Amino acid sequence: MSQQQYDLGVTCDMHVHVRDGKMCELITPTIKAGGISVAYIMPNLQPPITTIDRVVEYKARLEALSPDTTFLMSFYLNEQLSPELVAKAADMKCIQGIKCYPAGVTTNSNQGVDPNDFTKFYPIFQVMAEKNLVLNIHGEKPPVKDGDITVLNAEIEFLPALEKLHRDFPNLKIILEHCTTAEAVEMIERISSENVAATITAHHLSLTIDDWCGNPINFCKPVAKLPKDKRRLIEAATSGKPWFFFGSDSAPHPIENKSKCCGCAAGVYTSEYCIPYLAQVFEQQGKLDNLSKFVSFNPLKFYRLLNDEHIMNKPHCILYKEEQTVVAEIIKDDIKVVPFKAGEKLNWNVKWE
Amino acid sequence: MSQQQYDLGVTCDMHVHVRDGKMCELITPTIKAGGISVAYIMPNLQPPITTIDRVVEYKARLEALSPDTTFLMSFYLNEQLSPELVAKAADMKCIQGIKCYPAGVTTNSNQGVDPNDFTKFYPIFQVMAEKNLVLNIHGEKPPVKDGDITVLNAEIEFLPALEKLHRDFPNLKIILEHCTTAEAVEMIERISSENVAATITAHHLSLTIDDWCGNPINFCKPVAKLPKDKRRLIEAATSGKPWFFFGSDSAPHPIENKSKCCGCAAGVYTSEYCIPYLAQVFEQQGKLDNLSKFVSFNPLKFYRLLNDEHIMNKPHCILYKEEQTVVAEIIKDDIKVVPFKAGEKLNWNVKWE
Repeated sequence: MSQQQYDLGVTCDMHVHVRDGKMCELITPTIKAGGISVAYIMPNLQPPITTIDRVVEYKARLEALSPDTTFLMSFYLNEQLSPELVAKAADMKCIQGIKCYPAGVTTNSNQGVDPNDFTKFYPIFQVMAEKNLVLNIHGEKPPVKDGDITVLNAEIEFLPALEKLHRDFPNLKIILEHCTTAEAVEMIERISSENVAATITAHHLSLTIDDWCGNPINFCKPVAKLPKDKRRLIEAATSGKPWFFFGSDSAPHPIENKSKCCGCAAGVYTSEYCIPYLAQVFEQQGKLDNLSKFVSFNPLKFYRLLNDEHIMNKPHCILYKEEQTVVAEIIKDDIKVVPFKAGEKLNWNVKWE
Repeated sequence: MSQQQYDLGVTCDMHVHVRDGKMCELITPTIKAGGISVAYIMPNLQPPITTIDRVVEYKARLEALSPDTTFLMSFYLNEQLSPELVAKAADMKCIQGIKCYPAGVTTNSNQGVDPNDFTKFYPIFQVMAEKNLVLNIHGEKPPVKDGDITVLNAEIEFLPALEKLHRDFPNLKIILEHCTTAEAVEMIERISSENVAATITAHHLSLTIDDWCGNPINFCKPVAKLPKDKRRLIEAATSGKPWFFFGSDSAPHPIENKSKCCGCAAGVYTSEYCIPYLAQVFEQQGKLDNLSKFVSFNPLKFYRLLNDEHIMNKPHCILYKEEQTVVAEIIKDDIKVVPFKAGEKLNWNVKWE
């Protein structure tokens, strides 16, 4: 019997956290190990990345750690950015987009924006639209004391703000990052625009609230929601539709920050096994033929990279059946990180051709 | 200005876990410290308590540890119980009730019952109704693989089974333990029967999903739900209505079992500060006058203890204003337990008169 395999093309993970320092050294090379060739890097370091010098320096550091990976870089949206700086960074091709965090919703988001008032950033959005930069949005409303916004409905409550942004900037490419709810999927489908997309993580295709309840290792923001939401995300991810593509939101934390009785760090680390995790889900749905759209064609098209020769000439990721792929219990060097589904078996592995 | 104080009567906590061994030695005396005189003790030891010998021995042990506390004892409902044994235990006054756990929903519930089929226990329920025993129900449907029951709706999905039980045994006293949802409160109010009540914990009057998300110390089963549910629970608890009374579900775990990246123990430990926690909430609602109903008159009436001379002659718990009551960071001996709201300030303290 011939080996079952799929050419996934030039694979992209359009939402990756590789952090800084020792963690960055440990984690950056695992992007390639997980079957990813092009990685869009999140800027929520401490302090956040808001200057050309820092984004250039960070990218060079990542390239030194993993020369085969293509790093797409981003700024962190806050008041330190000016339209002039954004235009210059775009012209220099230092960044592909800007990440927008509502203040207070997730790891290192305290310098983020007030999602009730995007208008002060409208001059920046205008430049972004002109310069073909992507706006990456963490789409959650922050909770208000004694209010009704919780981790469960924070994304749903944010959706009208995203629709308004699209109406005000129809030519700006906007991504609702790591979407987690049926309502978000339905909004993206209703808009059906080549300028509005959603990324979907690997872990949100597997987890529901019961999986992170009592298991901080599966706790992330936005939190995994209900079974009906998971089903809708699986349907969207495996559909092949152009406005859904992969962004792992792989977010490593040292194990000691995940093993606390109070204040566990939010984030699931998936980079090392990204493509095998996804293959598992696509296989279950009988949709492995659509996996290359989700991880390659759709993100490359949305980010206008299908004509980028450097990227298009990169080796392809080949997915092949290997039923005894066991997820490591821990990824370690000086620091220890527990990967998603640690110790579990996966059916697939990756190679490059 | 005279000191603000309230005579709460003979105070009851009708749902307490004191465990076994070293934990039991550490925790049992804290029931009195928290302002509670009468404690209904849960039988989910390992193995669960299902014999007269064991319940008698357990009670004697608790009395030795805390001579001023009145312990009301219970059996654990499973197939080891027979109607004859239950009748004998009731005649001997060894137990006041029987606790029913759906298998698999919480700590040490693996020997519990299938909530889709209570009928095999109907002969026991018949005896319980005749002997004035109380049925204490952990009212959650267990999840089914790939099904739609989660920690959020497990209680709501259970409610029809409870209503059916009440229809089939209208004279059996049934308590929906540690109720957590607006739907449960509304069902209890709709039934409006002297034979159906709900206990409410202290922590569910303070917590919502966002408080346990990432904070295993606040993780318990049933989990704290949404702000609307919390508001409805506060309204019920402070209403003075006879079918709502206090059951702390205080459930201590060693700190190391709460500080794990996987499989954190479910349970919030509140015994040491029960009454001050409650007073805080009742004060905020301007309902301190109803606190004695919630912790004394309502539970004593439901359990038919208002004519029990031994109990009614016990000292009263006096609540008094003391704004600098600081919750300990940790309760410890050989084992360490983190109390609810560790390190926070409370406005009230208790004494006995």
